[in-house]
Formats: sequence, structure tokens, C-alpha cells
Amino acid sequence: MTLSAAVVGGSGFTGGELLRLLAGHPEFEVAQATSRQYDRKTVGSVHPNLRELDLRFSSPEDLDSVDVLFAATPHGVSMEHIDTFQDAADTVVDLSADFRLQSEEQYDEWYDGHVAAEYLEKSVYALPELTRDELPGADLIAAGGCNATATILGLKPLFDAGIMNGDEQVVVDVKVGSSEGGASAGKASSHAERSGVVRPYAPTGHRHEAEIEQFLGLSVSFTVHAVDMVRGASATCHVFPSSPVTKGDLWGAYRESYEDEPFMRMVAGGGGVYRYPEPKAVAGTNYGEVGFEVDPANKRLVVFSAIDNMMKGSAGQAVHAANVALGLDETAGLEFSGLHPVGTP
Amino acid sequence: MTLSAAVVGGSGFTGGELLRLLAGHPEFEVAQATSRQYDRKTVGSVHPNLRELDLRFSSPEDLDSVDVLFAATPHGVSMEHIDTFQDAADTVVDLSADFRLQSEEQYDEWYDGHVAAEYLEKSVYALPELTRDELPGADLIAAGGCNATATILGLKPLFDAGIMNGDEQVVVDVKVGSSEGGASAGKASSHAERSGVVRPYAPTGHRHEAEIEQFLGLSVSFTVHAVDMVRGASATCHVFPSSPVTKGDLWGAYRESYEDEPFMRMVAGGGGVYRYPEPKAVAGTNYGEVGFEVDPANKRLVVFSAIDNMMKGSAGQAVHAANVALGLDETAGLEFSGLHPVGTP
Amino acid sequence: MTLSAAVVGGSGFTGGELLRLLAGHPEFEVAQATSRQYDRKTVGSVHPNLRELDLRFSSPEDLDSVDVLFAATPHGVSMEHIDTFQDAADTVVDLSADFRLQSEEQYDEWYDGHVAAEYLEKSVYALPELTRDELPGADLIAAGGCNATATILGLKPLFDAGIMNGDEQVVVDVKVGSSEGGASAGKASSHAERSGVVRPYAPTGHRHEAEIEQFLGLSVSFTVHAVDMVRGASATCHVFPSSPVTKGDLWGAYRESYEDEPFMRMVAGGGGVYRYPEPKAVAGTNYGEVGFEVDPANKRLVVFSAIDNMMKGSAGQAVHAANVALGLDETAGLEFSGLHPVGTP
Amino acid sequence: MTLSAAVVGGSGFTGGELLRLLAGHPEFEVAQATSRQYDRKTVGSVHPNLRELDLRFSSPEDLDSVDVLFAATPHGVSMEHIDTFQDAADTVVDLSADFRLQSEEQYDEWYDGHVAAEYLEKSVYALPELTRDELPGADLIAAGGCNATATILGLKPLFDAGIMNGDEQVVVDVKVGSSEGGASAGKASSHAERSGVVRPYAPTGHRHEAEIEQFLGLSVSFTVHAVDMVRGASATCHVFPSSPVTKGDLWGAYRESYEDEPFMRMVAGGGGVYRYPEPKAVAGTNYGEVGFEVDPANKRLVVFSAIDNMMKGSAGQAVHAANVALGLDETAGLEFSGLHPVGTP
Repeated sequence: MTLSAAVVGGSGFTGGELLRLLAGHPEFEVAQATSRQYDRKTVGSVHPNLRELDLRFSSPEDLDSVDVLFAATPHGVSMEHIDTFQDAADTVVDLSADFRLQSEEQYDEWYDGHVAAEYLEKSVYALPELTRDELPGADLIAAGGCNATATILGLKPLFDAGIMNGDEQVVVDVKVGSSEGGASAGKASSHAERSGVVRPYAPTGHRHEAEIEQFLGLSVSFTVHAVDMVRGASATCHVFPSSPVTKGDLWGAYRESYEDEPFMRMVAGGGGVYRYPEPKAVAGTNYGEVGFEVDPANKRLVVFSAIDNMMKGSAGQAVHAANVALGLDETAGLEFSGLHPVGTP
Repeated sequence: MTLSAAVVGGSGFTGGELLRLLAGHPEFEVAQATSRQYDRKTVGSVHPNLRELDLRFSSPEDLDSVDVLFAATPHGVSMEHIDTFQDAADTVVDLSADFRLQSEEQYDEWYDGHVAAEYLEKSVYALPELTRDELPGADLIAAGGCNATATILGLKPLFDAGIMNGDEQVVVDVKVGSSEGGASAGKASSHAERSGVVRPYAPTGHRHEAEIEQFLGLSVSFTVHAVDMVRGASATCHVFPSSPVTKGDLWGAYRESYEDEPFMRMVAGGGGVYRYPEPKAVAGTNYGEVGFEVDPANKRLVVFSAIDNMMKGSAGQAVHAANVALGLDETAGLEFSGLHPVGTP
Repeated sequence: MTLSAAVVGGSGFTGGELLRLLAGHPEFEVAQATSRQYDRKTVGSVHPNLRELDLRFSSPEDLDSVDVLFAATPHGVSMEHIDTFQDAADTVVDLSADFRLQSEEQYDEWYDGHVAAEYLEKSVYALPELTRDELPGADLIAAGGCNATATILGLKPLFDAGIMNGDEQVVVDVKVGSSEGGASAGKASSHAERSGVVRPYAPTGHRHEAEIEQFLGLSVSFTVHAVDMVRGASATCHVFPSSPVTKGDLWGAYRESYEDEPFMRMVAGGGGVYRYPEPKAVAGTNYGEVGFEVDPANKRLVVFSAIDNMMKGSAGQAVHAANVALGLDETAGLEFSGLHPVGTP
Repeated sequence: MTLSAAVVGGSGFTGGELLRLLAGHPEFEVAQATSRQYDRKTVGSVHPNLRELDLRFSSPEDLDSVDVLFAATPHGVSMEHIDTFQDAADTVVDLSADFRLQSEEQYDEWYDGHVAAEYLEKSVYALPELTRDELPGADLIAAGGCNATATILGLKPLFDAGIMNGDEQVVVDVKVGSSEGGASAGKASSHAERSGVVRPYAPTGHRHEAEIEQFLGLSVSFTVHAVDMVRGASATCHVFPSSPVTKGDLWGAYRESYEDEPFMRMVAGGGGVYRYPEPKAVAGTNYGEVGFEVDPANKRLVVFSAIDNMMKGSAGQAVHAANVALGLDETAGLEFSGLHPVGTP
């Protein structure tokens, strides 16, 4: 039985990734992709990797009824149209920040004025590794933010294992690619300006701190740098635990949390070139890599976490969550293992 | 019925691509991957995208019997071991230059001394778009060279349509990525030296001219430049036809040759960003893009052709040829459509 | 005696390069830099390499009287203001295409309607290597276009030596960086879209053909590709001479033309990594590199020419021309030799 | 009066930068450049930006007497030859780690066995901003390590102002370019493998911690990542001060330390694209940029520091130190202000 799917906001970067994943998904059929700007244009004219897809964008004003609707619109759009989305589909997966936080107070602290705050409590935040049990049957799923996802995936096993409890000093230093700026980024994202940068773009106060605080109960010192890649988010978490931890303890903790997870890879030392997580190794995939090292001299743990911000950090995570929510095989449509070698991912 | 496959030379770049494709192929099972240097190491330690693959490299001295053997060894190795390869497998697909040319004379003109020249006549050169009918049942298949493949795919429709006959003046200006140098490239391929280059590395006399001459009957003025990408070959063919040609003629010719080809895309003008072929749009895929434009002022045609040198120009082409040779679905294992956006591919 | 200089259009990429060069020039003092958009902002806030420069942009409405005025405005702007510019300065150096062609007919063939056509005959086109003798005392100097400059520098010695006469078949395949699109480039120039491209952006009919035709008397088959660099233009000229030419002939021709030129380097073979011209080797400098190879099998010469499009192809060329026009040391302010290693230039 | 200079190890990356700087220096004349590997080859064949330099490498066995000798050899070489170096020149500037630490105990803690430990006490560590007063007349100068330099420059004003005293928790997360690996880097540094990486290469225990501890009296949690640039080191210092600090306090501290420093730029907020330090803005120059922000929610300061690792972090620093040591103008030969725009620096 094929399920019908719609992508609202299909011309953006994550919209394109959703269309790619759904077009190759064994259970979903793409019924509709909307784009105000590219209405009636072929999907392939905007996403050149999808030239084989026989589909044209339609106006977001005319939503069909579908089994699942994915909203890949800028922050603030979904909250305005959430009633319409829920009318069109029993299952709505929103990729924006609109429904990630679970109270209006928390939302107002980090963003500006929610217009559909009654949905905040009902939405299920989706990192499937974190909230798998709440997803089946969910009406509204809020896919986690990319930088928050990288951080939460990196630190969650330490909480699960009791190595962290939320009182620790934690610095998270994040490096991200240009696709985080979206398809309509401005001057600072031009090739001439952004090539080769290491540019602090969110030194303090990044909004993803809110998601980390909500789901890990941890206040983190969070700083984000733009670096020269298109896809990818790499979070280096510097943790100062209250009591000494060995590398064996860490292997135990991460294995316990992730050895049965279909999309998590542990990469922590060993020989060769690829000894720790790196975005290149997961580019284009729904995999997350985590690794770690102990720094006894400074009583520090260093945890590395790498994802493709548009996949595990957005569209892949959304499809993964929909798979779980609808009782499908978790990995359906998400089997791509990535490329080697690959350039700037 | 699953077919067993071996990859000889599995630790190189194209060896890794073969392993990726075969691991995801519905009809093949990877029975063996050899590597002298990485004997007993996991495949995932060399190709980080294949960490999920439960396989270790074995020595090339101990080949198992398999249904199909892919040889991804440096030029000159396959010819020394071809008897062993043919003993191990009914179908051998060689990715090197060793069996591409069909006579010893031609081989000696471009390379140095063949040690198994008796196989030259028997081998089937594989661009499936060119030699599809000769592939079923072939014992020895020689996958075409990357730059030759890009060029032949670009120009073949003009021969099919009688627009070219081989007497034309043709300049082919090729731009290639760093993966063409292989996994053990030297100083000129270090990141510091090769980043951002436009470097003429084969101004004249490139050996792929031989393949083009053999299969198109055309002598081309061929020049290859290294540019800043990892994957990709882009051939710009400047053709001076003997009589005037319109863009409509070209559309007719290319549609006639390629509209039923599962891996060929025609991209020739229109609006938007992606108006002509580009390697980014096919990175990681087995697709080839071709496009064209007419320059009446100079009585010239310009044909653009773009492939992923490791896929359509090597490992993908090899699997495609094996699919045809063994009577499988042509596109099996080769469905990946590529990513958008993507950085340096 | 210090000469005062103004830069109109100082916030663009070439405007920034002019300001850098003039600030370090022993004979010029920057009296004014105009920018409508950044009026009253510091130059350093737009060009971060010029933070030490104690200068703010002023409005282009209020031009001071200066000894020399450099106009780095988009095509079409200078022709509207040329009377004002000439009132403000005895010597005007224009970096746009407005005054490069020397007749209104020719201009109209390639561009749209000139509003100050009476200046076309009076302007002196500046590639100093081509027109050095006409520059002293010139009122209006039109700095050559970047791609035309690379091509003309590559082929001029063949004309000087009688190896070419303009009747030859010539294909010029050009690779350029993203700075050619200027500081306000659009979606196709975003980092996510433009990273790693080999993108045909001017397959036929590029306007720089006009300059080449005007100054070499040669009709060229010209195609331009965008590649992954910020600075740089690399022209590969495929030439089919009427009679055979040896590499020794070529060395003779290029030495004759360029051995006394202060900014021309000949790079044609030899060992090591850098055997032919490449943009990386001249990034940030006013040098041009030319090299060549003979392809007897195809009766072809291949000429490689590499420049920094913003320097030798624009701002550097403009300052060089001003030095000659005003009787200064030709190399004043242009001594920077470039960096090694350097990334994407 | 011109001073003669020799560069031992002139074919490496920092050796090349030394030669570039000395060739353009008003007071120095390059008398000799040694290279075992490239003995008798021209400097320009190895460093293509120096083709105009009329100089060939000579063997390191035959050192001339010079006024100043710069040693740009791998770690461990200088200590073996230091007597010879001091015989050849009154002033030796060493760019390796051999003489940076000031006691044998400290050296042995981080490196392996010093063979000329008696020089450790005599050598003067050179960050001129830190040790300017000790440089005049020094016989042996040890230029600071690139990552240590970036960190020390970032944090020193906080110590000077009493905001830090060395007891603070400090995480330094560093991002570096591929030139740090030197001219003979291996497989992990090939273009195909290193393009686009965010790769943790020194998660803990980086040797530059020793320099930071020695000169700031601070133990830092130090982690270094390889990112996609050739030149550059960017240190993000996350500092947890013992009492609250305002942004005004920080401006005061940094101005006090750096407003008279010829090579330090403060970049801390404001509008536009370049609001914090970034390696692109200083590529090719001897400038260091520092910036900062306060994170009251986490009681944290974030300090950003960016340098060109081969200039301010090596060759530029060495020439700067030699200028001070020999009583020359501090900025002589180091005036280059950098480029805008520039690609991967």
C-alpha cells in the first residue's frame, strides 16, 4: 500500500532533499510539491539531480489531501498554516523551528510570538534516537534542528549512562556548511566571500541552545562557525565531568545507546585517516557519526559528532521520523551509504 | 538468484566505488575484496562510507571462484593476471586501460608492451551506449576510460545522425577532478598544491585519444586540465562541421540517440542555473549529461558532456556493463540520482 | 610629487583592488573613494584587508578634482558620467567595457546603444604590452577585459612573429573564477551552488570576442566556463597554424615579445609541478603567465595563458596603464609576487 | 647597509615564505637558500611565485657566513646543527619547535630528547607582542608555533588586564589549514581526502599546549581540527572568568594591549560581513585579528583569534622578530595587507 506525500516548500534545499528521498522511497509516492516562486516549473529545473522526476511545482494555495505532509518552509510559515496542513494530512512533519519547543514561554524566550501555541504541547520532537516511542501515531512531528541534533546525538549517551547529569560545564563548538543558510542566502554566502572561511557566525545565543536545554536538561556554551563545506554540521563537545571517566567507560556508554541504532556509527580512534567523525563520511546520508577521547590532563572529555545538516539534521531525520510514526521500516528510503572519496561535501 | 562478485584492487578509489555499488546491488553479493596493502583490514577503515559492510580485505594471491570479477588495479596489472582472473570468473570486467584497445599495434602506439595481447581482440569495450549488443555473454569487458567516455558520449549522436563523419576539426578541452590521480597521488595532488588549480596536465598526447580514435574513427585535439573538484570529468567539444547545423538538428540527433538511454540526460539551454551539463549534477551517479549550442559566427558546434569519472567513467560503467552482460536489469544498483546542493563533488 | 587619485565605485571587487594598490603605491595618494551603497562607511568595513586605511566612502555625486580618476563601475555607468569624470581628472582610467571598442558600430554589435560614442575614438585601450606607446598623455584609458586580456597576451607573440596572421582556426576555452561575477552576484554564485562547478556560462557569443577581434584581427571560437576559484582567468588557446611550427619557434616568438616585459612570465614545460601557466601562481599579482606546447599529430599549437582577472585583467592593468600614462615607473605599486602555497585563489 | 640572510630548508612551505619576504625586504639580501632535495634547482621551480628570483638552492652542507640565518627545517633538525648555524650567523632565527621551550624538563615532557639542551635557556621565544624587549641583540630566536601564537595573541590582553590569572577553565578549539602539514604531507592530505573536511586531528595533547602554558601560565583544553583552507589558523577561546566581565571591559583590555601594535587588528562586532576575526582577512599577511564576545547566560567569554599560520604563525613572525632583534623598522618587508575577495586562503 503506497502512502501519498506532499512537500510544502519544495524548491528550497531541504525541500529538494525531501523530494529526492520520497521519490526513492518504497512506500511513499510524491503527490505534490509546492513552490510559490517556481509554480508550474519542473522540479528538475530547480533540483538538477531530479531531472528524471516527472513533477511540476504547484501553488501552496491548493493543497491536496495526502497521507503525510512535509513542511520545509522558513521559520514562522508553518505556524501560520498549521490548521491547513493538518486538514490536508493526518500526519504533518514540520522541518522548521516552529513546533520544536514545547511551551509558549520557552518559545518566546528564543523566538518572537507564536501564533499557534496550542500545538506546541501536542507536537512530538523528532530525533528518533531520543523520542522513538512517542512517534507512532503522532499528528504533528517537529524535526530537530541540525546543530541541536548533532549536539544531542553526541551527548545523549553520556546522560543515559549517568556520566553527565546536566550540571557539567560544556562547550560546544560547531562547524557548519553553507547549505544551512538556505537557497536564498545573501552576500556573505556568495562564493567569493564564503569560500575557505572560518567565520564565527553565532558566537553566543544560538537558538538551538533551547532545544538542547529542553531535551538534555543542559545549558551549553554554544558557538557556531561557518567553514568551507556545503553540507555538514560537526559538533565538538568539550565536557568537564564531575568525576573521572575512562575511554572504556565511554565505549560502554556509546555502545549501550547506539549499537542497535540503524543510523549511528561510532568512530573513536584506531588507525588510518578516518579516526573520528567527520561530515564528509556522512554527506548525503542519514547517518550520524559520534566519537570521543579523554583528556586526563584537563579533566575533560571531547566528544565529536558529525551529520549532514540537510539529512540527519533535517530531511533525512524527517523521513526517518515519518517511517517510525507510520509503522514502516525505519530505514526505508534512507539506505544511501555515502561516497568516498568526495570533495567539499 | 544471487551472483557472487569479487573486486580485485578494492582499496583504490574505483575499487571502493565498486564495493559500494555491489553492496547495494539487488543481484550481486560481494564475496571478496582484495588489497595487498590493507590485507585483513576492514573495508570500512579504508572507505569510511562503507563502515556497515562486514568485510575485510584479503590478499590478491587467493582469489575465490566467483560469477563476476571486477579488476580495479593500476594499468599494467590486469594483463599480467588475466589468466588467473579468467580462471576465477566467467565474466571479468577490467577497469584499467589494459584491454581497451583492440590490436597490439594500437596498444604499442600509446602504451608500452602488452604481455597478454591475445586477449585484446576478444575483449569487449564497454560504453554500454556504444557496445550494448556485444556485451551479453562477454568473457572479458574493458570499461572505457573516463575522459574518453565523456568525449564519446558527447560526440556519438553527431556520428549516428550523419552530422559528423570523422573528417572534422575537433578540439576537446577536458576538465577533471583529483580522483583521476587515484588514492596514491603524489605531491602535485596534495591539498595545498591542488586546491583551486586550473592546471594543464595533459596538453597534448593524452592516451584516451586512442579510444576515441578507435571507437569514433576521429582524431581529436585533446587537452586535459586539472580543476578543483574531486569527482568529475567535463568535456567541452568544439566541432567544426562541414555543413551548417541548426540547434533543431542537434536536438533531433541527441534525442534519437539518447531518449531511451536510462543514464543519459540532455541539458541544452532553458532558464535557471543549470542550463548545460555539469559534473556536480551527476556526482555519485551513473548519469551522463550532454548538451550543445550552435555558434554560427564561427561555424562551430559546442558540445558539453559531464560525468562522474569514478561512476559513469569507471565503476558505474563497469557495473552497468556487467548488468547487460549478465542479462540483469540495466539500472540495477545504479539508481542513485545524486544530491543538490552539493559542494566540490 | 604625489599624485591624487579617486576611485569611483570603490565598494566593488575591482574597486577594492584599486584601493589596495593605490594605498600601497609610492606615487599616488587616495583622495576619494565613492560608493552610493556604503556612503560614509569605512573602506575597511567593506574590504577587510584594508582596515588600516583611514578612509570612508563618499557619494559619487561629489567628486573632488584629482590627478587621476579610476572608474570601477558596472558596464554602462561610465559612459553616462564620462564628462563629469573628465572634468574631475585629466586622466581617466575606466575599467568597464564602455570605452574598449573603438567605433560605435562595433559597440552596437556587441552591446546596447552608447550614449557617449564620441569618446570611443579618443580612448586608448590598455593592455600596456599591446598599446604602451599610445598611453603617455592619454586622457581616457579603457582597461582591457579580463578574458580578452588573457587571450590577447597568449596569442600576441604569434602575430608578432608572423606565425599567425588572423586567418587561423582558433578555439579559446576559458576557465574563470567567481569574482568575475562581481560583489553583487546572484543565486548561481552562492557558495552552495557554485562550489566545485565546471559550468559553461558563455558557450558562444561572449562579448570579449569583440576586443580580441579588434586588437588581434582574429575571429575566435570562444567559450567560457566557471570553475572553482575566486580569482583567476585561464585561457587555453587551441591554434591550427597554416604551416608547421616547432617548440623552438615558439620559444623564439614568446621570448622576442616578452623577455623585457616586467609582468610576463614564460612557463612552458620543464620538470616539477608547475610546468604551464596557472592562475594560482599569479593570484593577487599583476603578472601574466604564458606557455605553449606543440601537438604535431593534430597540427595544433596549444597556448596557455593565466592571469588574476582582478589584477592583470582589471585593477592591476589599470594601475599599470596609469603608471605608463603618467610617466611613472611601470611597476610602481605592483611588485607583489604572489603566494605559495595558496588555496583556491 | 644591507644585511645578508640565509634560509636553511628553503624548499618547504615556510622556507618559501621566508624567501618571498626576504626578497622583498628593504634591508635584507638573500645570500643563500639551502635544500638537500632541490640542490642546484632554481627557487622558482619549487615556489612558482618566485620565478623572478635569480637564485638556486644549494646544499645545506655548505653554509655561507651571513648576518642572519633563518632555519625552516622540520622539528629535530635545528638542534642537531645549531652550533653550525651559530657559527655561520650571529643571529639565528629558528622556526621549528626545537628551542621554544625553556627547560629540558619541559621539552622532554612534550617531545623526545633534546640534543642541544644548553641552548634552551638562551633562546628567546618570539611572539614580538609578548617578548619584544628581549629580542634586541638575541643570538637565537625561536619563533612561536602557529596554533600557540593564535591562542596567546587571543588571550594575552586578558592577562595583561587582570581579567584572567591562569586559574580559569579555558577551552581552545582551533581550525587549521593544510599547509600546517608541510610540503611533504601524506595520504590524509591528498586533495581528494582533505577537500572539505572538518577533521579532528589533535583531539587532546597537542604540543602547542606547552608553549601556552610556558608563556601564559595557563593550562588549556586544546583541540585542533583540519578544515578546508590552505593557510590559516583560527583559535576560538572559550573562557570562564572568575568574575563577570562586560564587553566594555574587553574593549578596554584589548585596546590597552594592542592599539599600538603594528600587526594587530581588533574586530569585534559591528555590521557587515566581517564582524569577527577570520583567516581569509589576513591570508598572506603578518596581521593577527582578535575579537571577542560576552555570553552572560553561560558566564563565558568567547575570544576569536585568526592568523596566517605561515606568516604571523611562522615566517612573518620570524622576520618580524629579526627586524626587532636587529634594530630595523618592525614592519619592514611585512607591509602586504592581504587580498579581498580571496578564495580558500
